[in-house]
Amino acid sequence: MTENQETPDAEDKSLSGSATLPLRPPCERLSCHKSSVCSRSYFVVVMVFFHVYIINVIALLFYVHYSSGQDDASRSRDAPSGSHQPPESRRPPSKPEFLRDVSLTRIEGIRVGHVQKVSLVPGKVHEMRTLSLKPLLFEIPGFLSKDECRVVMQLAQLKGLMESQLMVQDGQEELAKELNLSPEEIFNLLDINQDGQLQLHEILTHSRVRDGIWLTPENLREIYAGLKADKDDNGLLSLEEFRLLSNDAFQRFLLQQGVKRSQLVRNSRHTWLYQGKGAHQVLQDIKARVTRLTRLPPALVDLSEPLQVVRYEEGGHYHAHHDSGPVYPETACTHTRLAANTSTPFETSCRYITVLFYLNSVDGGGETAFPVADNRTYDEVSLIQNDVDLLDTRRNCDKSNLRVKPTRGTAVFWYNYLSDGRGWVGEQDEYALHGGCMVTHGTKWVANKWINIDPDYQRQARYQQLVSQQQEDEDDEGLTLNTDVQSPSIHQDL
Amino acid sequence: MTENQETPDAEDKSLSGSATLPLRPPCERLSCHKSSVCSRSYFVVVMVFFHVYIINVIALLFYVHYSSGQDDASRSRDAPSGSHQPPESRRPPSKPEFLRDVSLTRIEGIRVGHVQKVSLVPGKVHEMRTLSLKPLLFEIPGFLSKDECRVVMQLAQLKGLMESQLMVQDGQEELAKELNLSPEEIFNLLDINQDGQLQLHEILTHSRVRDGIWLTPENLREIYAGLKADKDDNGLLSLEEFRLLSNDAFQRFLLQQGVKRSQLVRNSRHTWLYQGKGAHQVLQDIKARVTRLTRLPPALVDLSEPLQVVRYEEGGHYHAHHDSGPVYPETACTHTRLAANTSTPFETSCRYITVLFYLNSVDGGGETAFPVADNRTYDEVSLIQNDVDLLDTRRNCDKSNLRVKPTRGTAVFWYNYLSDGRGWVGEQDEYALHGGCMVTHGTKWVANKWINIDPDYQRQARYQQLVSQQQEDEDDEGLTLNTDVQSPSIHQDL
Repeated sequence: MTENQETPDAEDKSLSGSATLPLRPPCERLSCHKSSVCSRSYFVVVMVFFHVYIINVIALLFYVHYSSGQDDASRSRDAPSGSHQPPESRRPPSKPEFLRDVSLTRIEGIRVGHVQKVSLVPGKVHEMRTLSLKPLLFEIPGFLSKDECRVVMQLAQLKGLMESQLMVQDGQEELAKELNLSPEEIFNLLDINQDGQLQLHEILTHSRVRDGIWLTPENLREIYAGLKADKDDNGLLSLEEFRLLSNDAFQRFLLQQGVKRSQLVRNSRHTWLYQGKGAHQVLQDIKARVTRLTRLPPALVDLSEPLQVVRYEEGGHYHAHHDSGPVYPETACTHTRLAANTSTPFETSCRYITVLFYLNSVDGGGETAFPVADNRTYDEVSLIQNDVDLLDTRRNCDKSNLRVKPTRGTAVFWYNYLSDGRGWVGEQDEYALHGGCMVTHGTKWVANKWINIDPDYQRQARYQQLVSQQQEDEDDEGLTLNTDVQSPSIHQDL
Repeated sequence: MTENQETPDAEDKSLSGSATLPLRPPCERLSCHKSSVCSRSYFVVVMVFFHVYIINVIALLFYVHYSSGQDDASRSRDAPSGSHQPPESRRPPSKPEFLRDVSLTRIEGIRVGHVQKVSLVPGKVHEMRTLSLKPLLFEIPGFLSKDECRVVMQLAQLKGLMESQLMVQDGQEELAKELNLSPEEIFNLLDINQDGQLQLHEILTHSRVRDGIWLTPENLREIYAGLKADKDDNGLLSLEEFRLLSNDAFQRFLLQQGVKRSQLVRNSRHTWLYQGKGAHQVLQDIKARVTRLTRLPPALVDLSEPLQVVRYEEGGHYHAHHDSGPVYPETACTHTRLAANTSTPFETSCRYITVLFYLNSVDGGGETAFPVADNRTYDEVSLIQNDVDLLDTRRNCDKSNLRVKPTRGTAVFWYNYLSDGRGWVGEQDEYALHGGCMVTHGTKWVANKWINIDPDYQRQARYQQLVSQQQEDEDDEGLTLNTDVQSPSIHQDL
């Protein structure tokens, strides 16, 4: 982007250079009417010169224009990452549709095990190893120094960490009532294979999405027994058996029994660290390094979520999940809601890339597991079966296709979305499913840097334009203190 | 390539324009000593002008230079495909090392099932579907018209087809004697799992590479019985049992018994059709369309092997194989042998891309099978097991991960090599293993267009330069009839 702006600049300079120099200063310095031969010949020479010059400059500009189509994004990787200039900010604000002149670099994985050298900090070369192609996943040992890891953990502790998931989920009951579904309708929704009975895994799949309590088949059998739900005791619920249960029977039973933190989807504490101007130098450095690593336009990284720091105590875990959901035409991105014209109940965080930093080496457990990495096919339904639940990172991490051991300073990063084939964000990559295995010994500290990009290019461009206008307004008013512009509610739901 | 040449051109023009115009013509046209004020001021103006001009041109040239790094190749895709101008031909012939200024386009697969529209012939849009990512494999229905398919089959029949594999393989025995290995050494080489016994699949793996006769476990048991090789009849050969067999015992036994065509690796007939100037228009059109499809520099396609047309009769097959082998530093490519400085016993065809055309729809069988497409891992040894041999396309096509049904006019194409991550050919893609399933009803006609590229960029560049010089020499001598330059022995071993 930055270089692309040279075109008009260069043109301006050359035009003024050629138009003003020969026409004004000579007449001021010498008396032009002294010799008519002189002035006529002078004029001829200058005009010939001027035309040759202009033709050459135009030819070069044309060449520059046609050769700077595709890889602007890859070239802008070296632009100063502290710049808060969004790619669209110099376009005329009256233009409602933005030309798609940015192409997002997507790093090539080549094959599993491929190692490429990357230059991220002066005087040092990092090795980046491809861990999987589905998702496109890389590992970079030594991405953060020992001191940087320490600073990030200390800053997080200073700020204070909060529970990543609350114990009691409110508002779920109301939603169910609002939807106004009959037991038959709910039964049908749950009965994935439509065999007229609810298998344990059919209940489990639903239950996790709904109330954030992680049920195991054993839990469920206990609940069946406690509620006397499964009269014929075959582990299956018929419509008749299901009808006898109230809407929130499971949740009430669990709350009566007492839910332990280990029974939640996430068992960790986290906080957010802003990385904009005025932030600790280490945090700004990390953001700059992530920009170099991902080779994305700095503005996209600048306008992404702050750094999330997470602490898992012994016994902590995070069951397998997607960092960002699928995007359909009616889905809004949390970060560009500002620029969305419509209101929609569907929203996701649109985290194109996840960069995960290990801030310490864990004594036991705590691996990052990718249950279906590089699987030939993705079958959501078969992830949860009655005997093995691949999403359960307390039990089945050993059955994941890929596990990354936490090592201090190492960064892993992956793409949560595919390419659209035209240089922008495409569909969700379902293979990016991952979780944090249970920490068996010690504490685990990690940080997450997400890069948020709206798969709708127009929305992303509008959003960036809005932010840059807002910034200009603030600058005009002298309000330069808080330049790290964030949609205020960007991490409300995290 | 083409655009890149503008840099020196533009520079020459601008320099001559600025250096000669102001210095020579004015003095000729006007008497410069008439007015000293005039000439001094004239000099000042011209010098200022000259410097501003030069600085601007230099700045622009720098920008052009730094922005024309990566995607030259993708931009040259629309260059006329009939042109026989190799990318290196404009470079000075005295330069021994070639700058790597060509970047090969690699089409993005995105995900299995992804469909992208491609424009290959005027007024028509084709749909290209991603069939697998490992190998990167696409299908384009209707790539050839019904008439084009007919013409290609007729041209092949006119030329005459030859057996794809001869029944008796000569020269193998001599090689074994040359290598001068003891039975113990051979036994050790064959014993992959080093358990001191030869399993059936260990013999099979070796046998196929050596003599082109496709042995099944049943064949092998027959041979054991016939030769009384397996004294204890446990299906395993011990070193003692192996020692009693002569080097060529298996082959001799088979030849005594009589080998059927169905017992060979390939059971088909084929011929080659040149596609250069003077060839049938349909053949030239197909080459041009392949160039558009693959988005590779036309010179690379022009200098590749001719079109191979293959006919499988009922019962015909081609067991799973790689179209091109792995490339190590000492491996030569058949097509660039002309430019290789060294002689090496290792040679492969360096077929970067295979484009396979189905010329007819087959009544039964004849699918193209990719046994390990998109497998999570590639394990050569486990392909052949005692019970299931995934390479056997007469028996186990149904166990292949992917099968493409032959449909008239459809083209499939895949990359036999990975990218090297810097825009050139990298390692062999082992997942590109494929074969032709047995034709159960009717006849099967296919054509293959291979695009040969040397993974050693320097060798490819030298080769193209040599060819272009040879062409120039021929043109100078008025020998313009045969401009389709081919290394004469390029398909000797096929």
